[in-house]
Amino acid sequence: MPVNLAAPSPESLHAVAGVRLGVAEAGIRKANRRDLTLIELAPGSRVAGVFTQNRFCAAPVQVCRQHLLTGDIRALVINTGIANAGTGDPGLAAANATCAAAAQLLGVNAAQVLPFSTGVIMEPLPVERLVAGLPACRAALKADGWFEAAQAIMTTDTLPKGASQKVGASGTAAAITVTGISKGAGMIKPNMATMLGFVATDAAISQPLLDRLVQEVADESFNCVTVDGDTSTNDSFILIATGQAGNAEIVDAMEPDYAVLREAVTAVAATLAQAIARDGEGATKFIEIQVDGGATHDECKAVGYAIAHSPLVKTAFFASDPNLGRILGAIGNAWGNDPALRDLDVARLKLWLGDVLVAENGGRAASYREEDGSRVMKPAEIVIRVDLGRGAARGKVWTCDFSYDYVKINADYRS
Amino acid sequence: MPVNLAAPSPESLHAVAGVRLGVAEAGIRKANRRDLTLIELAPGSRVAGVFTQNRFCAAPVQVCRQHLLTGDIRALVINTGIANAGTGDPGLAAANATCAAAAQLLGVNAAQVLPFSTGVIMEPLPVERLVAGLPACRAALKADGWFEAAQAIMTTDTLPKGASQKVGASGTAAAITVTGISKGAGMIKPNMATMLGFVATDAAISQPLLDRLVQEVADESFNCVTVDGDTSTNDSFILIATGQAGNAEIVDAMEPDYAVLREAVTAVAATLAQAIARDGEGATKFIEIQVDGGATHDECKAVGYAIAHSPLVKTAFFASDPNLGRILGAIGNAWGNDPALRDLDVARLKLWLGDVLVAENGGRAASYREEDGSRVMKPAEIVIRVDLGRGAARGKVWTCDFSYDYVKINADYRS
Repeated sequence: MPVNLAAPSPESLHAVAGVRLGVAEAGIRKANRRDLTLIELAPGSRVAGVFTQNRFCAAPVQVCRQHLLTGDIRALVINTGIANAGTGDPGLAAANATCAAAAQLLGVNAAQVLPFSTGVIMEPLPVERLVAGLPACRAALKADGWFEAAQAIMTTDTLPKGASQKVGASGTAAAITVTGISKGAGMIKPNMATMLGFVATDAAISQPLLDRLVQEVADESFNCVTVDGDTSTNDSFILIATGQAGNAEIVDAMEPDYAVLREAVTAVAATLAQAIARDGEGATKFIEIQVDGGATHDECKAVGYAIAHSPLVKTAFFASDPNLGRILGAIGNAWGNDPALRDLDVARLKLWLGDVLVAENGGRAASYREEDGSRVMKPAEIVIRVDLGRGAARGKVWTCDFSYDYVKINADYRS
Repeated sequence: MPVNLAAPSPESLHAVAGVRLGVAEAGIRKANRRDLTLIELAPGSRVAGVFTQNRFCAAPVQVCRQHLLTGDIRALVINTGIANAGTGDPGLAAANATCAAAAQLLGVNAAQVLPFSTGVIMEPLPVERLVAGLPACRAALKADGWFEAAQAIMTTDTLPKGASQKVGASGTAAAITVTGISKGAGMIKPNMATMLGFVATDAAISQPLLDRLVQEVADESFNCVTVDGDTSTNDSFILIATGQAGNAEIVDAMEPDYAVLREAVTAVAATLAQAIARDGEGATKFIEIQVDGGATHDECKAVGYAIAHSPLVKTAFFASDPNLGRILGAIGNAWGNDPALRDLDVARLKLWLGDVLVAENGGRAASYREEDGSRVMKPAEIVIRVDLGRGAARGKVWTCDFSYDYVKINADYRS
């Protein structure tokens, strides 16, 4: 039951000049389900990506990292059902065979293809079924295929996730389009990126600046999301720039157009990232945790994650119970995420739930009333704000609550 | 539904010479429930303790640390219902008032009393009701009061937890008794100690050696347990030595009697610690995670906790589903607990479930059969073994699975 989240309308996802998408049923794990997506990029497109930090990173992630080194990427292949992670050398061979097959179909080199997989870990990828499905993907390629691709990359997602913007580039009449899709509902605590996120723009931008942009955007979007604290083996966030918008190529981060593009890409990516928490497995509430007054951005994030990952906090939100001591308890443990917080002075800390001051001076605020706590716990969207009182840095985390359905979904998945 | 855990019989908990225990109904949070325990120690008893590392440590923990500095402890007061944590200066005043009242009753100084609280965080301790209940505790003091005390310190525990041993000290006819009780079911990831654990022995042992023993025992018992990864604000493990067994005082860790005593205290503490995981909130399975082949003990524990805290792993065990890729995913994230694991070579790692080799060479073991995985997932007790293949250190973690009932218990608790 996603929280204040609807599927985007197909028309709202603008085509991006230079990008075509096609999906097919390859029967990778289940029959009668579109589970294979091919994204074709026009010559001259630039691609940048950030990937999972999990040591058991999936075979396709290893191949993506390698292929991005040489650049000139012309296609992406995405399958659901099997993650091709924890699959050793045969997994790498399967990912490479995927690239080779797509390359042959499109008349490019295997190193110009990026493979992505999502699904069950440690089971072999049926690469022959995947390869057999690719011609149907190619036949289906179309510029307005974003919505179907958003559907085809889903796993436990309840809704396809997509977002799109058109913005004007300064000094030209050219409009820049930014469109993206994402998937993910569980095993979500991205470190560098989310499960799978693909954003494309027709803007012209240099490769070094695109590499910088993907990192900046990830930190403000996918890297703010957590569902259950389990960083996936397959997290990938890919930013594509086809260069067909007609704008003067952006080569310097000080150019106004860089700011315009960054704002648009960040907005699209943030919408996609929030959609993952809103559609978190079993979610009934969407929670934004804002941490201010930290000595560093990292320690603010550490506090945010300590709150967001506490099963006790998450179940209290599910119950709409202002059992707010659990939030203090979680903050007190945040030094486990960042040792700099060992000297956190809890007497200087302030905690708000919505507009209600809950805690200060190391304990419950004198002004706090239980009925105020109950009132602000009820809505489907809740903001937790923490002022650490020890600096000017800030950070934010988006998450969801922890319900019976999280257990149900994850006890049933795969079985 | 505790896993292979029964309440100890009252007779099995041997009295410890020099220790008397009394309980009463103080109505601290709920009526008609024994919620207050007084433990009286004979003159000459020695006490050592280890406490939570949570920055929001409870007021009684702060007072305990202070009172242990001067030593000569003569009494412990334990209440359930309210944790007296996140309560600021009024909380400290309440903990000190508790000590003063108990001291007056027993004719000792307030600094000779250790206070302990467990229950809801950030609500004020009704210290007047607690103080009013102390005379009834004193009237009930008796040497064989361990079982009733084990009952009186429970919160969401489904069973009282206690263990006891008698061992012979070498070179004398004296028998040494070790008896302990504990409580805890949720908010359990002790760091230094568990929620509340009290172990007493009549052995004579020097204070420096007792201070060392409490740390050694904690590392082999309470510090191996995790239920939900939430380190409580109130964790305390207290070891009492009354010196009344008649053995020659143990003053050197090389003495055979030190080894005898350590083994007995560790056995009692390990039973109490395991009982907490067996009675973990909503637990249906007890899981021991053994990590070998690490470069350090710390990194072995980091891997153990990464597995034990993964909601995806815990729900898979609840479902008895050998969705074992989730364990690999959790191991791949363990560097978040210990940065030394950033260079973990997953190709050298081996994973067993019970007697079944599940993964090697970076993927599923060639010999692995799904039916073997299903077989070893079924029992109520499961051993996960990981060989990191990079050293000779080892570590272990005890935990439980994650069920609907964990959510139910924590969504309902307090409301």
